[in-house]
Amino acid sequence: MDDETQREQASPAVRKRVQESFDRQGLMSHLGARITRIAPGRVHIVLPSRPEVTQQNGFFHAGATSAIADSAGGYAGFTLFPENTDVLTVEYKINLLAPAVGDHLEAVGTVLKYGRTLTVCQLEVFAVQDDRRKLVAHGQQTLISLNGPEQ
Amino acid sequence: MDDETQREQASPAVRKRVQESFDRQGLMSHLGARITRIAPGRVHIVLPSRPEVTQQNGFFHAGATSAIADSAGGYAGFTLFPENTDVLTVEYKINLLAPAVGDHLEAVGTVLKYGRTLTVCQLEVFAVQDDRRKLVAHGQQTLISLNGPEQ
Amino acid sequence: MDDETQREQASPAVRKRVQESFDRQGLMSHLGARITRIAPGRVHIVLPSRPEVTQQNGFFHAGATSAIADSAGGYAGFTLFPENTDVLTVEYKINLLAPAVGDHLEAVGTVLKYGRTLTVCQLEVFAVQDDRRKLVAHGQQTLISLNGPEQ
Amino acid sequence: MDDETQREQASPAVRKRVQESFDRQGLMSHLGARITRIAPGRVHIVLPSRPEVTQQNGFFHAGATSAIADSAGGYAGFTLFPENTDVLTVEYKINLLAPAVGDHLEAVGTVLKYGRTLTVCQLEVFAVQDDRRKLVAHGQQTLISLNGPEQ
Repeated sequence: MDDETQREQASPAVRKRVQESFDRQGLMSHLGARITRIAPGRVHIVLPSRPEVTQQNGFFHAGATSAIADSAGGYAGFTLFPENTDVLTVEYKINLLAPAVGDHLEAVGTVLKYGRTLTVCQLEVFAVQDDRRKLVAHGQQTLISLNGPEQ
Repeated sequence: MDDETQREQASPAVRKRVQESFDRQGLMSHLGARITRIAPGRVHIVLPSRPEVTQQNGFFHAGATSAIADSAGGYAGFTLFPENTDVLTVEYKINLLAPAVGDHLEAVGTVLKYGRTLTVCQLEVFAVQDDRRKLVAHGQQTLISLNGPEQ
Repeated sequence: MDDETQREQASPAVRKRVQESFDRQGLMSHLGARITRIAPGRVHIVLPSRPEVTQQNGFFHAGATSAIADSAGGYAGFTLFPENTDVLTVEYKINLLAPAVGDHLEAVGTVLKYGRTLTVCQLEVFAVQDDRRKLVAHGQQTLISLNGPEQ
Repeated sequence: MDDETQREQASPAVRKRVQESFDRQGLMSHLGARITRIAPGRVHIVLPSRPEVTQQNGFFHAGATSAIADSAGGYAGFTLFPENTDVLTVEYKINLLAPAVGDHLEAVGTVLKYGRTLTVCQLEVFAVQDDRRKLVAHGQQTLISLNGPEQ
């Protein structure tokens, strides 16, 4: 995924497909997360800070950080999948690099390797405070594509 | 952690310390999760099914599954840490083995290797429906212990 | 995989298939590793200590530890695969829990979840010195089964 | 690590320290691997193809791929560590993206986040054939720095 790709938007049909699937994820709206960018092979999700997403010290909970990272990666893969396929996470690994403190988190999922069956994504999460953007989590994810719009 | 350990409860002081920390995690109460067992080196967390924790197909979201797995592992380590230390997740890896469908999820975190600085836990998540209990996620986590009750 | 399984041996046909594949792995014989047990869903590989497998302090190199763990997991999955399929490692994660020092290492791969496409294994590596057996590495691995005896 | 960093070489003292440690790794010379670049926070290791490093189909064995990836990441971190500290791998995760076939492999370890205790690296492995360079493995690694030149 080069920088050119990053600037592009996905086609309207793909964006619609991603947004509709995202809107069906009860967890994302319950956390207050929203998709802010849908490019081919790259998706951004933003999660504003609020008490409902914290751990014991008031930072973003690793579970919240991971949830948006996982969804960002899943939808990054989904932008490249053929129509009428679904995406499931096979596994992921994430390092929490620094306390996640800020106005909001931004998760960026990027396809590293697209495959017919398995796709591998990079997961990055930034904590944003005013105009400071700090990498707070970094991970790697394996997705599987399944036939049929539902599974 | 042998079976004997699994049956034990942690001391009242440790259970209090874990429960109080858990109660400060805004995310856990927002998701509807609760701790159901606190043993030395092993903690169970239960998450009832409801629309607020789903992904696009109505299953438990991998982010919800991971969030309780991460917390179960973190508190499993915390039961063994000296007083006045805090616990942070360094990283974890989780495989989603099967669609997570059921009345509730039960995450079990178990210490595999306790260390003064780093502790490694096994993470298991079961989907429970009536009296059927199915392993739906399995992972591994690295924790770090930090001085001071807050960090 | 319960204890009963662990005691069993795989069928002669499966053991032959595993051993022949193992014997074609140039790396395993170059390291001096050998398969010591082939049970359904569980395989043991032993690696004797010698200067050719060390890191800078004279311990077993994490790369050697991982190599036998990866092969043990791969063949554990392979024992359950249909004939005329091949196995490839999709990914694995491993924690090095303690310095790997001893007469030999023993890697144990165990299937946690068998699937038609993807199989997930647990990886354990023990350092053995006289009659002391210490867990020095613990991991988790995803395998894919492919049609055709070669790929 | 920006591109500028990538072009730089580490200081002669750091390069000497890395090379001497590498030369003590029995496994690296037994596999035939050598360090080809030592930059601040980034190290390259090359492994030529030969039967001694293969798996059952004649590709590079995942264990060999991982071994050089692990060493490249470990030494990438080591370039940034203070004198008289040692480095150990806490854990790593690696995805095998494609069959590793070619004249040689090139592993590149890059520090993502340096810390006084824990350092996180990205691991990439390329298969090189003539002037074609293909990403065949991608991973993430956690290192710990320890006091004392030996551990």
